[in-house]
Amino acid sequence: MIHAEAKRRLAAVVGERGYLDRPEDLLLYEYDGGVDKARPELVVFPRTTEEVVQIVRITGEYRIPIVGRGAGTGLSGGAIPRHGGVIIGFARMNRILEIDLDNERAVLQPGVVNLDITLAVQGQNYFYAPDPSSQRSCTIGGNVSENAGGPHTLAYGVTTNHVLGLEVVLPDGSVVTTGGKEQDYPGYDVTGLLTGNEGTMALVTKVIVRLMRAPEVVKTCLAIYETVDDCADTVAEITARRITPVAVEMLDGVMLRMVEEATHAGYPLDAAAVLLIELEGLREGVEEQLEQIREVCTGCKAREFRVAKTAEERDLLWKGRKNAFGAVGRVSTSYYVQDGVVPRTKVASTLREIQKIAEHYGLTISNIFHAGDGNLHPIILFDHHKAGDLEKAQKAGEAILEHCIHVGGSITGEHGVGMEKMDLMTQLFSEDTLDTLRGFKGLFDPECRLNPGKVLPTGKGCLEIRQGPLTAGNTI
Amino acid sequence: MIHAEAKRRLAAVVGERGYLDRPEDLLLYEYDGGVDKARPELVVFPRTTEEVVQIVRITGEYRIPIVGRGAGTGLSGGAIPRHGGVIIGFARMNRILEIDLDNERAVLQPGVVNLDITLAVQGQNYFYAPDPSSQRSCTIGGNVSENAGGPHTLAYGVTTNHVLGLEVVLPDGSVVTTGGKEQDYPGYDVTGLLTGNEGTMALVTKVIVRLMRAPEVVKTCLAIYETVDDCADTVAEITARRITPVAVEMLDGVMLRMVEEATHAGYPLDAAAVLLIELEGLREGVEEQLEQIREVCTGCKAREFRVAKTAEERDLLWKGRKNAFGAVGRVSTSYYVQDGVVPRTKVASTLREIQKIAEHYGLTISNIFHAGDGNLHPIILFDHHKAGDLEKAQKAGEAILEHCIHVGGSITGEHGVGMEKMDLMTQLFSEDTLDTLRGFKGLFDPECRLNPGKVLPTGKGCLEIRQGPLTAGNTI
Repeated sequence: MIHAEAKRRLAAVVGERGYLDRPEDLLLYEYDGGVDKARPELVVFPRTTEEVVQIVRITGEYRIPIVGRGAGTGLSGGAIPRHGGVIIGFARMNRILEIDLDNERAVLQPGVVNLDITLAVQGQNYFYAPDPSSQRSCTIGGNVSENAGGPHTLAYGVTTNHVLGLEVVLPDGSVVTTGGKEQDYPGYDVTGLLTGNEGTMALVTKVIVRLMRAPEVVKTCLAIYETVDDCADTVAEITARRITPVAVEMLDGVMLRMVEEATHAGYPLDAAAVLLIELEGLREGVEEQLEQIREVCTGCKAREFRVAKTAEERDLLWKGRKNAFGAVGRVSTSYYVQDGVVPRTKVASTLREIQKIAEHYGLTISNIFHAGDGNLHPIILFDHHKAGDLEKAQKAGEAILEHCIHVGGSITGEHGVGMEKMDLMTQLFSEDTLDTLRGFKGLFDPECRLNPGKVLPTGKGCLEIRQGPLTAGNTI
Repeated sequence: MIHAEAKRRLAAVVGERGYLDRPEDLLLYEYDGGVDKARPELVVFPRTTEEVVQIVRITGEYRIPIVGRGAGTGLSGGAIPRHGGVIIGFARMNRILEIDLDNERAVLQPGVVNLDITLAVQGQNYFYAPDPSSQRSCTIGGNVSENAGGPHTLAYGVTTNHVLGLEVVLPDGSVVTTGGKEQDYPGYDVTGLLTGNEGTMALVTKVIVRLMRAPEVVKTCLAIYETVDDCADTVAEITARRITPVAVEMLDGVMLRMVEEATHAGYPLDAAAVLLIELEGLREGVEEQLEQIREVCTGCKAREFRVAKTAEERDLLWKGRKNAFGAVGRVSTSYYVQDGVVPRTKVASTLREIQKIAEHYGLTISNIFHAGDGNLHPIILFDHHKAGDLEKAQKAGEAILEHCIHVGGSITGEHGVGMEKMDLMTQLFSEDTLDTLRGFKGLFDPECRLNPGKVLPTGKGCLEIRQGPLTAGNTI
């Protein structure tokens, strides 16, 4: 329990309307986009870096765990306070501080919503590239902490490729700035290290990002298949022919029906799979690529190939893709989104393996994913009211990830390790390497007070905080 | 002095032909591509990671400083053993371990020459993107340590954007692997942190890089100007019109004459400046861009606009650019290459400032640089036989960098901080931030035994090794 005096002092920092402590309010902060849960004892909403510093210092005096939170859309439990304590929410630090189009940079507070960056500059034909499916609600601070990806990762890379500088508050209350507006900065690349730290090293209070010029032309097309194998073959053939779309998204039949029923985006209800492919660039180049893509899709037995004719048609197709998780929620009481990555040459065989795992556990697993990257997102449907169903879903998820590791891939493409995949880290890294990683964590957070119980399996230096078991509803 | 027993044990590790200890041999290892000097006491050439581990352990017992070295082409003194000790040269660890074209990856030993990666895959229409001017001799281990750039940085980014995984040996002899073949890896981005560590954290023993598909068409053109301002205006106009070449290199009149006399690449002898512009992509897109570029150059008063008609003509133009430093060496006894970066909107005014600084110090300063990036490389000519001339050149260099900082830029675009710019770090970073950076160094190298006296001005934790003054010929 948080000491009453600590609570009083924290409340004084953020003001009367700047914190939540009633059980019914705290309930809303016990989950994020994943399946794990744990309730905070207090949620505070600082307005300035200075307030963040004070919160960090006060909680430090009482050794209270702290966890940063953006919009809570993360999928690996990164914002879950698994050891209780205080959540620092960045909803009130949501201003765009500077747009510098001449040098193609923006300076942002952590609570700025991802899509709002693009909305602020699209009138001048610019955009911010990383576009997670949750981009209408997720925030740049969370994107930096999780190194978020998105459908256009194929062409533009992940968040770390677009973040040039940071201001962060360390668990001892010191404020550190890293990088700046230039492409490369002298000294060690701490900006790169902190991007993807999953909230375990520092609290992000300011972000400098790269803005990109909007392409002259964007073409979005949809290829519809009778079999998943034909669809996977198309991805392999696009790779082999060296055509480079900016996005290649695959949705399987189960997903198509869920998405179409929810969004009426025009996806077929009877197909085995579709590819949503996007091309960008100068007009002539895009037209040529489009013809090549049409040829490949038809050659791989697509039964239909559509090109969005207007911006509205294009938006509708993407709306379907980006709201997929919401669509799943309509038909299944619960679902578990996995995030594995395999070499692109192994996509088809991995899809077959996922089908086998689904049959083994008697679960429905639907696939929607960044096919061009080999970044899979199997969605495991389950019923959380049914005893043992969550555990089955989690076991199926682990089996999929073990397969990913087995074929030379990895356990996360963009969602992070969080609390969800912490125990799998030992399969991917040696104890020596994990010790090195623990050393980094210890450098920033020697007391393991910042987002404890995430990313790294408990090791030397963090033994004073006991790890809770990895189950939902955990409120240690 | 290295203890005789230590030397005997090190010699036993690398074998009879695997080390150098005669003064006339050591002389060749007292300098790199920069202006600073210091002589090592021993140079060893390990053949395997295991030998590197043994060397690190033995030198550790005797507390001997160690410095890694690739081809010694660095420009900021990164490979200079300023506190003596042992140089670990990677010339014998020069094998390409794996080419995996299906997944567009290569696995390399640190001594592989940069250009050899592209040569190994260009038959299959692939290439390795970062292309420092020294690419015919510099090695991938050095490229990783310095986060090397090159003319095509404008389109492809620097080394860190192309390195996906590393194997390194830490100063305590432990072997750590980071990242892997996938785009994003779970855990902290240690690969990113180590890329650009300037040899102060770890010795690189294996590198996994991304290979890229060769573009369908490459067009290289040369725009020739009567004034430097017209040339700088062209760069601004290309930016404003949102045309995106893969390289925009500027050479001023002094440089043109030196380069042409040395390489006969066809550069004009009487112009004030030229732009070397390269376009890549699909045929139609490139043709359209070329016409836009021609229009911009002519509109900005280029007196001539040439397009290379054959691959040979193209290679000749690049040969001129990439051998520029050699060309300078023919006309000046010594020269000092600076490396600053400014916002692209400040290129023209910074060039005028550099001219003023040249006049103030009575020196010739020639400019050749990555204009599209705002990454300047003023080349300061001096005579090292003339007393005080080196010091004047260094002061002029510092004045240029201070100007870069003043207009919102930075002190290095791609050459690193090394020993050359260490003292300027305090102008760019607060003591708090420098302490954080020192913490990173300390995590890897608590005894400051690995490449001491580089990057970070002496601070807490490294006081046991006294910093020598920053002058040439220093052999403390």
